[in-house]
Amino acid sequence: MIGCNTQLWEVKSSLRGVMAELQALSNTEKTVISLGTGDPTAYPQFLGGRPPFIDSLSSAFASSLTDSYAPSFGLPPARRAVAEHLSKVLKLCAGSEVVPFHVSDTDVFLTSGAAQAIHLVLTILSSAGGNILLPRPGFPLYDSACDLAGVRRRYYDLLPSRRWEADPTQIRSLADDRTLAIVVINPNNPSGANFSAHHLFQIAEIARDLNIPIIADEVYGGMVFGGASFVPMASFAHLAPVITIGSLSKRWMVPGWRLGWLVICDPQGNLQRVREATEILMNVYSGPASVIQAAVPTVLSDANEKFHENVVMLLELSADTLFRGLEKIEVLRCYYRPQGSMFMMVEVDTTRLLGIESDMDFAKELMKEESILVVPGSILGLKNWVRLFFGLPAGLLNDACDRMRSFCKRRMINAWQV
Amino acid sequence: MIGCNTQLWEVKSSLRGVMAELQALSNTEKTVISLGTGDPTAYPQFLGGRPPFIDSLSSAFASSLTDSYAPSFGLPPARRAVAEHLSKVLKLCAGSEVVPFHVSDTDVFLTSGAAQAIHLVLTILSSAGGNILLPRPGFPLYDSACDLAGVRRRYYDLLPSRRWEADPTQIRSLADDRTLAIVVINPNNPSGANFSAHHLFQIAEIARDLNIPIIADEVYGGMVFGGASFVPMASFAHLAPVITIGSLSKRWMVPGWRLGWLVICDPQGNLQRVREATEILMNVYSGPASVIQAAVPTVLSDANEKFHENVVMLLELSADTLFRGLEKIEVLRCYYRPQGSMFMMVEVDTTRLLGIESDMDFAKELMKEESILVVPGSILGLKNWVRLFFGLPAGLLNDACDRMRSFCKRRMINAWQV
Ligand SMILES: Cc1ncc(COP(=O)(O)O)c(C=O)c1O
Ligand SMILES: Cc1ncc(COP(=O)(O)O)c(C=O)c1O
Repeated sequence: MIGCNTQLWEVKSSLRGVMAELQALSNTEKTVISLGTGDPTAYPQFLGGRPPFIDSLSSAFASSLTDSYAPSFGLPPARRAVAEHLSKVLKLCAGSEVVPFHVSDTDVFLTSGAAQAIHLVLTILSSAGGNILLPRPGFPLYDSACDLAGVRRRYYDLLPSRRWEADPTQIRSLADDRTLAIVVINPNNPSGANFSAHHLFQIAEIARDLNIPIIADEVYGGMVFGGASFVPMASFAHLAPVITIGSLSKRWMVPGWRLGWLVICDPQGNLQRVREATEILMNVYSGPASVIQAAVPTVLSDANEKFHENVVMLLELSADTLFRGLEKIEVLRCYYRPQGSMFMMVEVDTTRLLGIESDMDFAKELMKEESILVVPGSILGLKNWVRLFFGLPAGLLNDACDRMRSFCKRRMINAWQV
Repeated sequence: MIGCNTQLWEVKSSLRGVMAELQALSNTEKTVISLGTGDPTAYPQFLGGRPPFIDSLSSAFASSLTDSYAPSFGLPPARRAVAEHLSKVLKLCAGSEVVPFHVSDTDVFLTSGAAQAIHLVLTILSSAGGNILLPRPGFPLYDSACDLAGVRRRYYDLLPSRRWEADPTQIRSLADDRTLAIVVINPNNPSGANFSAHHLFQIAEIARDLNIPIIADEVYGGMVFGGASFVPMASFAHLAPVITIGSLSKRWMVPGWRLGWLVICDPQGNLQRVREATEILMNVYSGPASVIQAAVPTVLSDANEKFHENVVMLLELSADTLFRGLEKIEVLRCYYRPQGSMFMMVEVDTTRLLGIESDMDFAKELMKEESILVVPGSILGLKNWVRLFFGLPAGLLNDACDRMRSFCKRRMINAWQV
């Protein structure tokens, strides 16, 4: 009998699958405004043009070397550029309680987007009966990657009342001697939080006490605003080893390039076996295209800092526009003005909306009636919330708010109906 | 305790790891000539220039769309181009015993090289206690992918005495009710064989009787010479469903682009579950860079057939040069003049070489003394053979033969020594 891996049906369903289903519901009369997937290139006018380093791709592929296989761990100049980029940031946030250290090129492994780094790290750490601590609300790729790697998921809560930081006591209480690692996403998708140095220090202390590494997803590293400053988890690598995951996708607005990295930040040398396992896997898997790897040193050079700063300024503007627009909608509630990433979480009072029993209903009906795409919070672990992406021009966000407002108004159950 | 997946050390060691170790032994006095990895771009003069479609990459990335995430299964025009490319080949080899059918764009999934397609297909088919039939000598990525997916490996032999075709009786005898699929690599790496339509038909009959799919690795599809013609396995898809794996890497000489495909050729609709499983996985994994996907229609257009034909002509010349050079070396034996791919297998009479007990010794000493890199046959499952890559200019192949000849001469045990 022709069979196949039935366990794949048990893998927690992906964001992409659900988004495709929602997309299909769109109302043909109105143009879709997507507050769904985190891809700012969908609205090129948001950035006012493409990134300045685009030409580096053409000079990279002018060399026939970029037709060739790259080394398994990545092209050496690209690995070096990532190491220097991270080391620079680490130095910048050196402070009294922070002991910076230098990341070297051999600590860096280039991957096909941060997405591949997530799969790799879970495969590397997995062991029979092991569990991992994930933030809730979260990024669903961690759920699927855990399921594929056979790692159990345990969730610690990010708390809207605490600026979306977690309760250290809860994190500790979830861990046992089969806990493999703690995942920290900072700046945070989906909440828009930027964790304080103190909070990161608390998490590092827990990892130190448990003698486990931290998986630090810093895909939105440096994308902070509103006076916030970004502290990389590796600033606390002297307490507990950190596996940093990053990517060109967001900070440099080229998610289609599929270039990410996994970096072993291990000043005490506790991750020797993890490093060897990474090397075994990287020798077997396929990494990013050589031509993209060749462009990395140019992309990460200081010359593009201006572009990045402009992106951050635009994001701040968009975040504020969306936040202010949502405040006017009675049945929606955002506890927190985002300080980083490109997302915020909004609570939906479904009890006050006619024919809406869940966040999924809300997302479906909103798409059907107003062609607004949002991510239902239940896929992220938070029922009756939705995630909104704000990497769009402010004008479009205002339109989106208007449409959401009239949708909610139409559906709102008035006091006398209850 | 900081631990990690100890099973990774059980994964059959990769080709890339072994090759890196051998490379490190090189003799600094002589330039390395690599007959190791199958990357013809290492010697740009072999092709007399880069492929004519290189500019398609620059026009592809002139569009800001290529900065964006591509859909999970691939960009629609690229999927369509692959479907048309395969359908065209299928039509060309329609004959009395061959029933061609049309591959459609929804059958095609774009992957990060054929390498990712191999990992995907094994993850998709794997089931507890299942086994898969692999050719020996083989391509080591299948071994690692089986180990990672938890699939048992069983080997059927490719026989030098039968132009490297297999014995159908042996294939049948290896199968049981836990056999998940048969892997067929044609044109063949490492032997250089191009299987006859009759042989492919025999394999399809076996798969039909066992009611299992065939995984057809056609990364070297169309790369045949010496009067041979290439028959795609999917020509027999009416007998047993075929999962075809292909890539831009070799036929178009751009392995660094990391663009491959997995195609479900299933005219009877027996692979419905496999298709669903593929969709689940593709929604979770990262595919090739969007800019590379955007270039696919141009690369696969008829305009590049001339380039391909020239590549094939050069490969034939190189294969003959290497074959004739090797014939002059007493202790080496090639049974077969290659008819396809870019490799041949050569038997080493280690009993007649001083200080050489195995193919690994041969490869090491040859690298140390002559800076010639070859693949030890034991990693491919064939002891006391070596694999030679011939995608090099004929001049370099002649040099390589000279060096191998003097190496063997120096090491040869004369009759009176025995
Ligand atoms: C938190 C987080 N991690 C990882 C990723 C994946 O990034 P990439 O596009 O580089 O694979 C994303 C993308 O949205 C993300 O939000
Ligand atoms: C038989 C075979 N299959 C698959 C591959 C992998 O191809 P790609 O470079 O497209 O990942 C190779 C590469 O050498 C190969 O020889």
